[in-house]
Amino acid sequence: MSPVVGSAFFLFYLLALCNASGADIALDAKATLLHRIDSLNLLIYTCLLTLTVLTIWVFKHRRVSWLHETGLAVIYGLIVGAIIRYASSTNQVTYIDAHPAPDTKYNLSVPPDILRFRFPDKIQISSGDTVPNKTYAYSFRGEIVNLEQNEIDLKATFDPEIFFNIILPPIIFHAGYCLKRKYFFRNLGAILTFAMVGTALSALVIGALMYGFVQLMPASLASSFTFLDTLYFGALISPTDPLTVLAIFSQLKVDVNLYAMIFGESVLNDAVALVLSGAIQNYEKRYSVDGGFEITAFLAAIGDFIGIFSLSLLVGALLGCFTALMTKFTHVRDWPLLESALFVLMSYAAFLIAEVFELTGVVAVLFCGICQAHYTYNNLSSDSRNRTKQLFELLNFLAENFIFTYIGVSMFTFPKHHFDPWFIIAGFLTSTLGRAVNIYPLSFLLNLGRKPPIPMNFQHMLFFSGLRGAMSFALAIRNTVSEARQAMLTTTSLIVIATVVLQGGAATHALAYLRIPTGQGQNDENEALPYRDVRSLYQATDSGRPTGDVGFGLRNLDAPTASSDMATETPRSGEAGEKARLARLWGALDSRLLKPLLTHARPPLTETLPGFLSPLARILTTTRQYTQADNSLRRTDSDSDLCLDEPQPVPTSIDPQLSFSLRNGYGNV
Amino acid sequence: MSPVVGSAFFLFYLLALCNASGADIALDAKATLLHRIDSLNLLIYTCLLTLTVLTIWVFKHRRVSWLHETGLAVIYGLIVGAIIRYASSTNQVTYIDAHPAPDTKYNLSVPPDILRFRFPDKIQISSGDTVPNKTYAYSFRGEIVNLEQNEIDLKATFDPEIFFNIILPPIIFHAGYCLKRKYFFRNLGAILTFAMVGTALSALVIGALMYGFVQLMPASLASSFTFLDTLYFGALISPTDPLTVLAIFSQLKVDVNLYAMIFGESVLNDAVALVLSGAIQNYEKRYSVDGGFEITAFLAAIGDFIGIFSLSLLVGALLGCFTALMTKFTHVRDWPLLESALFVLMSYAAFLIAEVFELTGVVAVLFCGICQAHYTYNNLSSDSRNRTKQLFELLNFLAENFIFTYIGVSMFTFPKHHFDPWFIIAGFLTSTLGRAVNIYPLSFLLNLGRKPPIPMNFQHMLFFSGLRGAMSFALAIRNTVSEARQAMLTTTSLIVIATVVLQGGAATHALAYLRIPTGQGQNDENEALPYRDVRSLYQATDSGRPTGDVGFGLRNLDAPTASSDMATETPRSGEAGEKARLARLWGALDSRLLKPLLTHARPPLTETLPGFLSPLARILTTTRQYTQADNSLRRTDSDSDLCLDEPQPVPTSIDPQLSFSLRNGYGNV
Repeated sequence: MSPVVGSAFFLFYLLALCNASGADIALDAKATLLHRIDSLNLLIYTCLLTLTVLTIWVFKHRRVSWLHETGLAVIYGLIVGAIIRYASSTNQVTYIDAHPAPDTKYNLSVPPDILRFRFPDKIQISSGDTVPNKTYAYSFRGEIVNLEQNEIDLKATFDPEIFFNIILPPIIFHAGYCLKRKYFFRNLGAILTFAMVGTALSALVIGALMYGFVQLMPASLASSFTFLDTLYFGALISPTDPLTVLAIFSQLKVDVNLYAMIFGESVLNDAVALVLSGAIQNYEKRYSVDGGFEITAFLAAIGDFIGIFSLSLLVGALLGCFTALMTKFTHVRDWPLLESALFVLMSYAAFLIAEVFELTGVVAVLFCGICQAHYTYNNLSSDSRNRTKQLFELLNFLAENFIFTYIGVSMFTFPKHHFDPWFIIAGFLTSTLGRAVNIYPLSFLLNLGRKPPIPMNFQHMLFFSGLRGAMSFALAIRNTVSEARQAMLTTTSLIVIATVVLQGGAATHALAYLRIPTGQGQNDENEALPYRDVRSLYQATDSGRPTGDVGFGLRNLDAPTASSDMATETPRSGEAGEKARLARLWGALDSRLLKPLLTHARPPLTETLPGFLSPLARILTTTRQYTQADNSLRRTDSDSDLCLDEPQPVPTSIDPQLSFSLRNGYGNV
Repeated sequence: MSPVVGSAFFLFYLLALCNASGADIALDAKATLLHRIDSLNLLIYTCLLTLTVLTIWVFKHRRVSWLHETGLAVIYGLIVGAIIRYASSTNQVTYIDAHPAPDTKYNLSVPPDILRFRFPDKIQISSGDTVPNKTYAYSFRGEIVNLEQNEIDLKATFDPEIFFNIILPPIIFHAGYCLKRKYFFRNLGAILTFAMVGTALSALVIGALMYGFVQLMPASLASSFTFLDTLYFGALISPTDPLTVLAIFSQLKVDVNLYAMIFGESVLNDAVALVLSGAIQNYEKRYSVDGGFEITAFLAAIGDFIGIFSLSLLVGALLGCFTALMTKFTHVRDWPLLESALFVLMSYAAFLIAEVFELTGVVAVLFCGICQAHYTYNNLSSDSRNRTKQLFELLNFLAENFIFTYIGVSMFTFPKHHFDPWFIIAGFLTSTLGRAVNIYPLSFLLNLGRKPPIPMNFQHMLFFSGLRGAMSFALAIRNTVSEARQAMLTTTSLIVIATVVLQGGAATHALAYLRIPTGQGQNDENEALPYRDVRSLYQATDSGRPTGDVGFGLRNLDAPTASSDMATETPRSGEAGEKARLARLWGALDSRLLKPLLTHARPPLTETLPGFLSPLARILTTTRQYTQADNSLRRTDSDSDLCLDEPQPVPTSIDPQLSFSLRNGYGNV
């Protein structure tokens, strides 16, 4: 560890050096200096990530299970943040108050984009140098709310919008692309209930309780919080983060239904919370300055929520389907590099289109990822499948660890923290309560109609998995304009750190304590093994290329059920008959229209569409769809290809015996 | 094509809409609007890249050879740039002149970072709204040189520094990672001569000639150019871009030595030109305001050049070797995801460290890439090899096409162009002449000592391959402060566009006209085939894991020569005896010390180091090195694994026959 600490200190020495010499050198050198400081900041995070990677390896190698990698990233971040805060000199930002020139003509009600500022003009520079009078451009940055607080020290911090535009999209896309759709759709009822109803309920309960708590607090803080503020806090602290728990789950081969519920819920509630907080902000902005309640504004906010969520979903799904069509009807798969580039560009376009139309890009990217996995993935060449999977796996890994490192570092270096012990305690209490309100009552209601009910120990585990993570932090740091918002950021950061480090570390023990069965003998194996056999069999023949004799004439209509998990499986999660019928309808649509249209799956549209559409159907069916044998259907519905089956990429160590036991997380046996 | 044009128009309609409504809405809405415009800009480039990808596919599918993909990207960029320029309304930036408050205290000689500006203060807003008086922060942006030119219209443009910090690093790293080191080292003498001496010579000749031309021009422009300006132009226009020509070369299987010379030269001359232009700027900044000549300053500039180049090289090489050590002595290869993350982070760290120390990050990244390929690559798991190769291939593809698209778009939208027909004509003439001065005299000199001399048709082809590309453009757009610099940018853009579109399109015909042999019967096959056989043989046994009986006892000292291409092969390119001895020395060092130290290659250090170091040698040798059979040596020197052998990733189309013929570029037969 000591060389690491040594090199860290060296970095900070360098930072201090940069700062010390920055005062009296020319402007050009100052620009160079700023670039160097930027590079140094990035280098600090790069070193932290490298350190995290190496420590993760050591932990895996030594079979340490009491601390997960995300917890590790947070702790490293905290240490380095403290060093930066206390070891390096402050890089004070210099200010001047400026006034418009007396004869200025200006007609707009918004401040100008650029100020033209003569320097030094009439200011006496006491340093003795003669400074040439020049004109400089200053660009608009934002409102200054607190004039006293002018020590904005931007060490090792980034613009919060970076999280929404650069860090979160690959994480969320990867979650959608990795979704184990089979189990996801089987538990769709429970997942949607927890994610939609549960998150809204949790936000409301936390918001109301916090508002009550705030009223009991010393007046200084109480007056700065409106009900909308606390409701916003409820919305941002409600989404859960799956990372830590799920990594342990897949290592220990926990029941797949529990896995699907936790993963599905946490993926969706990120999206729900993001749109919900946006709706609350819109409500605040448009209708209510004093935080009072207006029924029309409230309805408009609900309309906002539903409209933005569903339109974002639509944009993502459409772009996903469009990619599927492009990869199906062109032979771009002959050039995997082009194909992968197309895949990445279209997925990114989903994000951008949603943002251009003032929708939520992150939500669009989530559903784009799901569609890409469900349809496009089947059309891709095997090279592109690997490439896209591995690319997003790597991006996701780096982005996740970066954000958790940043949570740690920013705890010390971000200038807009406000520590209020009462608010923090209240935050911890209400967020725990909010999670309980989400899980237990809703599980009770779900169990009324659910065939295999959610057992009590699963409910406890669902409750226990309520770690807070990247989305909560990103929402909290987005707006730190008032003291109330700053107190929220501090509380959110602490909740994230505590849950990720403590709950994440205790997850293995919680599983054991709750007697949740783990190991290889689970459903996963029972169901996945024959499936895998089919796949590997097919892949073996596939590598030798399909020959002419793979059953051209075999066409039977019983086949589609095999590929439509949703249609046939969803009734097992059986809530009301209405819902099951809807799901069955969607399943039929998917397997008879969408899959044959968007992928090379059987049966071809010529068999499923009514007769009068057969000319159209013939155009939309590829030769491959006709010639494909029915027993290869399994292959095109390549659910098991995706990430869940590969919690850790297959090791290739020298000793296969050792690596096998490591991979399966036998460290705790 | 029409849906594409339609959707493009729709995008611009949207852009126009954004602009039209942007004038009189509140500040918050303005921020949203700016975000939407940013997203729209990115979306335009995403759509352009998608379009380029699809057209490339069509071209490959239809076997079009008269236009290369980079030329295509440029042309699409030009079309869309013209549409943006003439179809959408201007988004004028609003300005106010500001003065410091009368009682300001300020001691520094540099302008402040932030202005605090009250708005509207005493300005009369004629729109009739009452605007609340608030304080806003404005951050420093730069000097305003030309007060009249205030219509800075930033449509679809990016900060030029983005090229150096985001776009160029993956391109250059990929070039280093892909370098066919065997042929590179065999032609090292010629490559270094062309890249180092040639680029400097070319810069000098172009600079001197341009200075002469400028003196003959109308006085308005002539007075604004110093000799250093034209020399800077010479430095930025000298580096060549390999993309277009090399894609055609590898498709047609052109002679590998010619390939290596063109590729190696263009990779290195990018680095040389970057450092050279930096040295010229330093010279200008530090010593010479009037553009005169000072001998000490000139020597300091040369010192700058040598120092920065070699230190950057060192940083890159050290980080590469450090990665090799980490991957050799840890078992991180058991987790390919961690391993790939480590690889990416360390390579990025090379860039950042160089930037922090005011060296050239791009140069560091190039040599880091070479070291990663030469050492680290051998230690990686096969999963990580694939992943890193594919990742950088994809990043390179996207970055390249983005920069060429941007060159096209910016031709119309970048506000700081200055069209001066005389300067443009002079630029075309001198850049052609500069290339000729680089190739023909140096080839003549090289041929005096070179055993297989560079034939005349190869020299013509080297001359013809002098396309200008990304580096020239990035250097030109970096500084557009004066009219002279703007004229340089315009000329550079036009030269890049003309050479990429015209010369790139004509490359196939040039090959035929110059009777340069193409096809499979080349050296490449003669040498690469047996090599490949060894590899595939070894890979077959490798997938079954090395067993205990793979020749533990076989250790002979003859083996190392097999793995050190440089040592044994360089004399064949034989220049002076001195140089060949140096190269042989390096080859011996590489195969006896560096390779055994940094990779698992045989012979182990225990055999190559002197006896008194044997305890150290034993520590630094892995079990795998002892147990590895000598005939697997070939595998660890995995040159042929890298990109050159795979000009196009292996297609996996339905018809293997068809895809095979496509892959080998038989379109022109």
